[in-house]
Amino acid sequence: MSGNTLGKLFSVTNFGESHGPAIGCVVDGCPAGMALSAQDIQVELDRRRPGTSRHVTQRQEPDTVEILSGVYEGKTTGTAIGLLIRNQDQRSKDYSAIADTFRPGHADRTYWEKYGIRDPRGGGRSSARLTAPTVAAGAIAKKWLSEKFGTVIRGYMSQLGPIQIPFKSWDEIATNPFYAPDASVVPELEAFMDQLRKDGDSIGARIEVVAQGLPAGWGEPLYDRLDADIAFAMMGLNAVKGVSIGAGFECIAQRGSEHGDELTPDGYLSNHAGGVLGGISTGQDITVSLAIKPTSSIRIERKSINRAGEPVMVQTLGRHDPCVGIRATPIAEALLALILIDHALRQQAYR
Amino acid sequence: MSGNTLGKLFSVTNFGESHGPAIGCVVDGCPAGMALSAQDIQVELDRRRPGTSRHVTQRQEPDTVEILSGVYEGKTTGTAIGLLIRNQDQRSKDYSAIADTFRPGHADRTYWEKYGIRDPRGGGRSSARLTAPTVAAGAIAKKWLSEKFGTVIRGYMSQLGPIQIPFKSWDEIATNPFYAPDASVVPELEAFMDQLRKDGDSIGARIEVVAQGLPAGWGEPLYDRLDADIAFAMMGLNAVKGVSIGAGFECIAQRGSEHGDELTPDGYLSNHAGGVLGGISTGQDITVSLAIKPTSSIRIERKSINRAGEPVMVQTLGRHDPCVGIRATPIAEALLALILIDHALRQQAYR
Amino acid sequence: MSGNTLGKLFSVTNFGESHGPAIGCVVDGCPAGMALSAQDIQVELDRRRPGTSRHVTQRQEPDTVEILSGVYEGKTTGTAIGLLIRNQDQRSKDYSAIADTFRPGHADRTYWEKYGIRDPRGGGRSSARLTAPTVAAGAIAKKWLSEKFGTVIRGYMSQLGPIQIPFKSWDEIATNPFYAPDASVVPELEAFMDQLRKDGDSIGARIEVVAQGLPAGWGEPLYDRLDADIAFAMMGLNAVKGVSIGAGFECIAQRGSEHGDELTPDGYLSNHAGGVLGGISTGQDITVSLAIKPTSSIRIERKSINRAGEPVMVQTLGRHDPCVGIRATPIAEALLALILIDHALRQQAYR
Amino acid sequence: MSGNTLGKLFSVTNFGESHGPAIGCVVDGCPAGMALSAQDIQVELDRRRPGTSRHVTQRQEPDTVEILSGVYEGKTTGTAIGLLIRNQDQRSKDYSAIADTFRPGHADRTYWEKYGIRDPRGGGRSSARLTAPTVAAGAIAKKWLSEKFGTVIRGYMSQLGPIQIPFKSWDEIATNPFYAPDASVVPELEAFMDQLRKDGDSIGARIEVVAQGLPAGWGEPLYDRLDADIAFAMMGLNAVKGVSIGAGFECIAQRGSEHGDELTPDGYLSNHAGGVLGGISTGQDITVSLAIKPTSSIRIERKSINRAGEPVMVQTLGRHDPCVGIRATPIAEALLALILIDHALRQQAYR
Repeated sequence: MSGNTLGKLFSVTNFGESHGPAIGCVVDGCPAGMALSAQDIQVELDRRRPGTSRHVTQRQEPDTVEILSGVYEGKTTGTAIGLLIRNQDQRSKDYSAIADTFRPGHADRTYWEKYGIRDPRGGGRSSARLTAPTVAAGAIAKKWLSEKFGTVIRGYMSQLGPIQIPFKSWDEIATNPFYAPDASVVPELEAFMDQLRKDGDSIGARIEVVAQGLPAGWGEPLYDRLDADIAFAMMGLNAVKGVSIGAGFECIAQRGSEHGDELTPDGYLSNHAGGVLGGISTGQDITVSLAIKPTSSIRIERKSINRAGEPVMVQTLGRHDPCVGIRATPIAEALLALILIDHALRQQAYR
Repeated sequence: MSGNTLGKLFSVTNFGESHGPAIGCVVDGCPAGMALSAQDIQVELDRRRPGTSRHVTQRQEPDTVEILSGVYEGKTTGTAIGLLIRNQDQRSKDYSAIADTFRPGHADRTYWEKYGIRDPRGGGRSSARLTAPTVAAGAIAKKWLSEKFGTVIRGYMSQLGPIQIPFKSWDEIATNPFYAPDASVVPELEAFMDQLRKDGDSIGARIEVVAQGLPAGWGEPLYDRLDADIAFAMMGLNAVKGVSIGAGFECIAQRGSEHGDELTPDGYLSNHAGGVLGGISTGQDITVSLAIKPTSSIRIERKSINRAGEPVMVQTLGRHDPCVGIRATPIAEALLALILIDHALRQQAYR
Repeated sequence: MSGNTLGKLFSVTNFGESHGPAIGCVVDGCPAGMALSAQDIQVELDRRRPGTSRHVTQRQEPDTVEILSGVYEGKTTGTAIGLLIRNQDQRSKDYSAIADTFRPGHADRTYWEKYGIRDPRGGGRSSARLTAPTVAAGAIAKKWLSEKFGTVIRGYMSQLGPIQIPFKSWDEIATNPFYAPDASVVPELEAFMDQLRKDGDSIGARIEVVAQGLPAGWGEPLYDRLDADIAFAMMGLNAVKGVSIGAGFECIAQRGSEHGDELTPDGYLSNHAGGVLGGISTGQDITVSLAIKPTSSIRIERKSINRAGEPVMVQTLGRHDPCVGIRATPIAEALLALILIDHALRQQAYR
Repeated sequence: MSGNTLGKLFSVTNFGESHGPAIGCVVDGCPAGMALSAQDIQVELDRRRPGTSRHVTQRQEPDTVEILSGVYEGKTTGTAIGLLIRNQDQRSKDYSAIADTFRPGHADRTYWEKYGIRDPRGGGRSSARLTAPTVAAGAIAKKWLSEKFGTVIRGYMSQLGPIQIPFKSWDEIATNPFYAPDASVVPELEAFMDQLRKDGDSIGARIEVVAQGLPAGWGEPLYDRLDADIAFAMMGLNAVKGVSIGAGFECIAQRGSEHGDELTPDGYLSNHAGGVLGGISTGQDITVSLAIKPTSSIRIERKSINRAGEPVMVQTLGRHDPCVGIRATPIAEALLALILIDHALRQQAYR
């Protein structure tokens, strides 16, 4: 209830801090009998891992996952799966200065106001590092959805700051560190990022996530709609300020005669709905957009206050992603997978 | 689990269909000792009620609420509050034609695929009529938040189709049927709607909701963030396709030096965060935007299929809102109130 | 969260007070497509109904149930089922004397201490009258279990105060108002009860409930075991002070060589486990025992205090069951059905 | 939902198998600011630890706990607390024989029927070893209850097979390995156990747990009563077949004039209620009794079947507790603490 669990029938309970001894999660509700190895999970963790290009944080974390339970002789047993990732590259520096100051745009002050205490080391619990266990759990969800329904969940960056990135091909995404679906834009993205680092500033991004190959019928009206749960999961991702499905905010200016997807014996003629009607999957692609804010950790000095309420100037040095959106794609995929498996199991319960 | 409950410590369990005998809900977790009368709830129901202008559905429903339990001598007792609204204006016409056809943009087909059965009368369970119990529960939440914290929750329409509606004043909202905060735009809105009805078409809208006067510290990182729960509730509202907080999708093109809200001893200097950092309230205004799709029920003929999978043309007659966004404001306010009281109680549990 | 919901995948949210306008519940998670009429539910309500013999309370309540939603053309639609029972025989007498006094053995004082307010009319929310909605929901669960798995859930009284009631036959239970499985004991029970009423006192009882014909594999180790959930539901029934499964408290003096049920190709050779091993159903009969305390409402004067903390003598007049155990059998059956359907659906989710 | 989480506002999510690499849990909802060290938890784990006398299993496990998160500079931060216990004394022997056979009284067959797969090593997930994380979490709950309310939670063995153990003093419990409150009975218990081991048999036991020093008002009527949640937690403990509160099964033969606890300005005159009325704490001692079945692992040969359904004789060798009740006391204390803290937080939420 204190908020560290995602999902009802397939649930992930997350623990850890950025600079504590370890992070991890317990995955509860994975159906029995699925082949599962640490490597199956590691593949996804490696996609999210820091330090893999000059455009992301240089913190070196292998993010090696250990399966502690729930798997016997290479198969899931239906019981809770404990996953552990040891932190390796904690810095032993003194955090007392940071501990006393609230960084603008960060959760420093809200944690302080909520709990009266906070772990300031690298953002503590509010660090995006805690998305690693989510990605690990999502890897299990992805595998099950793929094997059981042939569902494919993929994402990409469609905008980096002012630069629109057209969708060219799923194949181009893995060829560049931005998850850009059009490799020809990459030089422009790199130049933008290089200048941004020189400026000591950060930038926002837009991420698209798509699930293909799932049946109609997933989702629970009324309140626990499939799109509501997707919005919940995505808005719960660090730095996300907006979530949309299908036509999203463009639907505001649409007429019903344009927006409503017509049906023929061969299927829907469009997908403004983004694969969800009345909170239930239509069987079309689920299409989700995320707006990700610029990283709050920047070298440019900013006004803030300390715990005593006195004015201070804050400059955030250290290792940071200048665009958290760059590493957000595998995380958003994981979140979508986690919501989909949860609703898949819910649908199985009642059918 | 079948999805009809919203909230954890303050929860609403909703039941009913558009043309069944009654709709209603059970509100569980309302703190004891608050003065509460049916009239306190009726005021909010009347704001959402159909038939109050020519721009909304002409169905005549008084939406009179009866409190069945949980209140003794005018005060809440801390036990479950049963709320009942009898449907009055059901039409006794034959629904067999509609029952056999899937209307584009509606949940007809997804309900069918999910359950293998559906109540076709007026959309059955998927009707926006089921937002009435949500509004009733939200009235209780609003009252408690107002009395306990002085929280004020208000909303308005900021865009109707192509027409932007500037924010002029909270006072102007109640003066027109659109919840427009600038009454000078109303003639333009009316003309647009009148033409739309003639066309037999419908239109989308954008709604803003704002909560003012709540303390810092509400929200549970990690997953059950305050903004995640708001996104969940809002995306769960019929016809919503996008939700954003604070700067929303504009954050994509923002730099960190612009987006991050600076702090001074006198407070924050801006509110791009929309009142939530790290999933926890900052004490600033909570600002939420909703994208609402055009009504799927239009008179214009559209392609679809029937249950046998054969092609049919569908024209939706009857009584419908040509812009569901017009009545969405009080519903969105109710949803925000329900999420806020839930997190207020959660925070009380742990402090 | 405030406690008025039972079950996870098949859940019942209960509302109402003994002397309020109505009691009822919302049943969420009933699978779609099952035939269901008000009469299906009424049958079970009539078994629990007051006023049916001189040995139970003389309050006259028809307990007529109205289905408000979730059923269309005689079949469940998979959406929330609203059930309403209007209270008919509230007494309009002045409760101010009772309102000021805490009756020994009742929840008067604990409600007061918890909420700072309470509805004193007939026990308000703490009245056993609130088991009626549970029985109504249980009727739906029973029907589904019976149709889907052939499960039969039945109970009986095995002890009334000092009188042991041997199990003779399921057929004898319906022939007497005590749910006694041996009608030859009934005269002794009647004589005992008649004397008890003259004494103005009350008495405890023991109830057995048995579920037959369910598959192995229901239950979720570790913590949400099938037996744990059964214990939860039964101990949550008014007046229950003890719950046991299978051999129950007799297992204390048993040796492993006696207790452990041996297996053969033809099945288990005994059922000390009561149909549950490791929290999971074995496929044998589920056997549950309940200890029910004597009614707290008695005519004999007892010491207590009032709200001012002053000593008072309390004599509880009015209409009361001298042995709440007599009407407990259909309620315990309903509770067992509700737990079983919940776990049946959970098992369907994961298999 | 798959059952591995206990508690709502203070929750424990448990993972691990008897012979896997590690066991542990995530504690979610511990209020911030409480001093907490590994040693605070270790003390309770050591009370449950195997191998501490000749009357319990000789498996050597130090059960050393590592705090992975949720504590900063010696204080809880309000975020999830990850606890890890590495298994040390797994045996590398071949389990293939056991894997193929269902041991009578064990969960071998039910796991098999539920999941279609099971980890047979030492009982896998169904092993009582998984109570260690519960005890670790309970240590945190105990500490908070003690510091905040002065609540003391203690238990003892009141019966070992046929031997009744009178309550003499809380001080005598720590002086013997049986948690017997009367040390003079210990020689008799030791002689009984020594003979039992020679016989290759096992025995049941009865445990009492008592919570003293908690306020009135904890518990949520109706369904989530305090006693219902206690029954749930206790019946969920391995080998428990019966749970009672206060007078328990003795209430069956009691009259209301005897059972109902009278009140005076100085307090209650008796405690047949066991500290709970109407599901809410009275402020008196919470008194709970558990019936624990004899260990299913015995050397005496018993009839069973293998996975092929063929008859086999089973003799369970290896390291086992001949009376699981002996080590059950600290576990039952932990469970009671976990339920009480959960309801303490729930009450804080609403007051």
